[in-house]
Amino acid sequence: MDIGEKEPVMLPNLTPDVALAARLFDELRARSFDGIGITREAYGPGERMAHALLAEAGDALGLERKVDPIGNLYLTLPGTDRNAKRVVLGSHLDSVPQGGNFDGAAGVLAGLAAVAGMQRAGFTPARDITVMAIRAEEAGAWFPTSYPGSRGALGRLKPEELQVKRLDSGRSLAEHMREEGFDPGFAEAGRRMLSPEDTAAFLEIHIEQGPVLEAEGIPLGIVTGVPGSRRLRAGRVLGEYNHSGATPRKYRRDAAIALAELAVELDEAWCLLEAKGHQLVCTFCVLATTEEAGFTKIPGEARFQLDVRSLDLHSVDALYEVLYDAVTRIEARRGVTFELGGQAGSQASLMDAGVQRGLVRAAEALGIAHRSMASGAGHDAAAFAQAGIPAGMLFVRNQHGSHNPKEDMRMDDFEKACAVMQRFAAEYGA
Amino acid sequence: MDIGEKEPVMLPNLTPDVALAARLFDELRARSFDGIGITREAYGPGERMAHALLAEAGDALGLERKVDPIGNLYLTLPGTDRNAKRVVLGSHLDSVPQGGNFDGAAGVLAGLAAVAGMQRAGFTPARDITVMAIRAEEAGAWFPTSYPGSRGALGRLKPEELQVKRLDSGRSLAEHMREEGFDPGFAEAGRRMLSPEDTAAFLEIHIEQGPVLEAEGIPLGIVTGVPGSRRLRAGRVLGEYNHSGATPRKYRRDAAIALAELAVELDEAWCLLEAKGHQLVCTFCVLATTEEAGFTKIPGEARFQLDVRSLDLHSVDALYEVLYDAVTRIEARRGVTFELGGQAGSQASLMDAGVQRGLVRAAEALGIAHRSMASGAGHDAAAFAQAGIPAGMLFVRNQHGSHNPKEDMRMDDFEKACAVMQRFAAEYGA
Repeated sequence: MDIGEKEPVMLPNLTPDVALAARLFDELRARSFDGIGITREAYGPGERMAHALLAEAGDALGLERKVDPIGNLYLTLPGTDRNAKRVVLGSHLDSVPQGGNFDGAAGVLAGLAAVAGMQRAGFTPARDITVMAIRAEEAGAWFPTSYPGSRGALGRLKPEELQVKRLDSGRSLAEHMREEGFDPGFAEAGRRMLSPEDTAAFLEIHIEQGPVLEAEGIPLGIVTGVPGSRRLRAGRVLGEYNHSGATPRKYRRDAAIALAELAVELDEAWCLLEAKGHQLVCTFCVLATTEEAGFTKIPGEARFQLDVRSLDLHSVDALYEVLYDAVTRIEARRGVTFELGGQAGSQASLMDAGVQRGLVRAAEALGIAHRSMASGAGHDAAAFAQAGIPAGMLFVRNQHGSHNPKEDMRMDDFEKACAVMQRFAAEYGA
Repeated sequence: MDIGEKEPVMLPNLTPDVALAARLFDELRARSFDGIGITREAYGPGERMAHALLAEAGDALGLERKVDPIGNLYLTLPGTDRNAKRVVLGSHLDSVPQGGNFDGAAGVLAGLAAVAGMQRAGFTPARDITVMAIRAEEAGAWFPTSYPGSRGALGRLKPEELQVKRLDSGRSLAEHMREEGFDPGFAEAGRRMLSPEDTAAFLEIHIEQGPVLEAEGIPLGIVTGVPGSRRLRAGRVLGEYNHSGATPRKYRRDAAIALAELAVELDEAWCLLEAKGHQLVCTFCVLATTEEAGFTKIPGEARFQLDVRSLDLHSVDALYEVLYDAVTRIEARRGVTFELGGQAGSQASLMDAGVQRGLVRAAEALGIAHRSMASGAGHDAAAFAQAGIPAGMLFVRNQHGSHNPKEDMRMDDFEKACAVMQRFAAEYGA
């Protein structure tokens, strides 16, 4: 049976314990403020502190506590049927350096607020409900591999990924794990803590990180999926340095104008694809002449990073068709050479349709405004979806983006998200 | 009377002493090779060496030698009428760091080859013919002000320009002049060595520095003028850094795509202006996201340097009209702000029409292929033109551009240029 279609169950008047979450937010902030923003290093002191704080809070609530050999923390409110598949509510506790307090932590504290509220109401769910604090999600800041914490729990972390180096320390993931008292051998042996056989659903609350909910005045987003991508991280355009005064148009091999033309063509193609109903984003994250450039020189080289994402990789592929075609034309017209370099890609991870419907139903039962939306960034929920566990996400409206000290979230928006998550988990557990 | 229109005079069978120039090129190269290319520092050891070498060569030929208080060297073959206005043949002897051997030096050695050939033929010109070795022309490499050597000789170097700092040493032009034994007070007092009252014409041979003559298979260019320019050296585009995955198109303020669009619009406008008969060049020498840019971020800032040049500043102004219009439209459409920064400009300096006709006539009398062309770069000849002295330039076909160690020039092309200069000077002097 699909949670999205099940009959309404009688639930007590549940509310999340947002005061508990607020106290923990304050405590986290106080203990990981770096003078500018929040720093919680993955497999380092900041994340260690946060896990200890959550373990302590779980103990205070009397939740069952467990830590897996990867270092993920599980705080479980037992259900009436201990053998039924559990529902997992969670997110990560690491942050980027000089980041904000809510990216990641909001999802863990939301889970805790939900189960604490159930306890407060004397509500026992039919299944176990587990709050999971995941390790090392911020791949861009620490370990450049996706979701090592959640994928480690799911038995999907490849042995070679244990050797990736933390960007600041230069030491491997395995070394850092051992340093924190964990056992990378668990991942090497392909063992797992969670599977579709024991987990009914994974639900993650996260700040949106984009401007859509704020701009549209809607507190909550119900996520349809985490996009797949095709990325060029080391694109180059090679032309020829020449005198900017002495070289007429027809003798030029200007790398910068060639790259500008490619960027504008892709931007127009993106616009056209959207008009045809495709949903995607296309960004030249870097678009630049090199150090050698300077006055009186026609640029002989330029480099770029291109990030194209969509829930539907056909849309991404359609844009890459335009890219290949444009590159050929621009090379011929401008006498330059494009070197696209290595291409990195990821599959899209759709959120479970039943979970989405369940979330919609919970939000509507509570009278909370919401909209469907694709995620733009990657999240641990994608790892659960890839592992075959029905996954869902709730986005909370946030201010000032993410990954910076000004990142913000209103506590009453957070409360609404917690309430929807709590109701969903209670229904799922019933 | 105009040299371009005068009746042919009977001249002996003059040829330039190219063997002398070849020996001096070799000597210059040997004494200023830096391991990679040629370095002759303005008001430094390299330029000092070159001036000493030329002085020695002038003494060996028995030419009258003079050095002005700015440090320019004059080697004069006396004419029959010592009171007639002189003809000056010259260029500069400094080079960029790790540059080539011909940029500048070719014009001085060509002058010397021309007068040495006259002596060899027993030819005495009607007027004095002076070979001038000019100081410090490479403004981009040493002193960031235009033509201090020739403008110093012409009494047009402003006192405040004596305070500009040499880019490598950080010490002022005045200090460097004094260090080499010269007297910046000469410029401060507004005194001059050359004027329209005593100088009939200035003629400069220079490598083209562009690819036109090489591509068209023509050894010689007769220069119509040195272009004027309007330049933006510190342009910026300000948008907003946002998550490249989480920010839909309509919420973006992407500085890089805005700049790319401006560059492509100006490139198209340039193309259209050319089709309407305008002659100009337009180059984004720098076009770049900043250090802050990186993966998963929409660029919030980009910077650029724009160099627009033409003999006709109306053409430059026409392009700037497009620029201002495009900036307004792109700002509105993309939510960014352009900061154009300070604008630097220079007037165009037309080469004297009579001198140009005289050069054409000399080339045709010698059966040497040539074409008219605008200069792209700045040259000392522009300073003479601005001072009201009829000026002309001959470009020699060159290979591999300029300002780099691979810069090259064929000696038989150089010989053709010397022969045209020699004949022109002999006719002018007659």
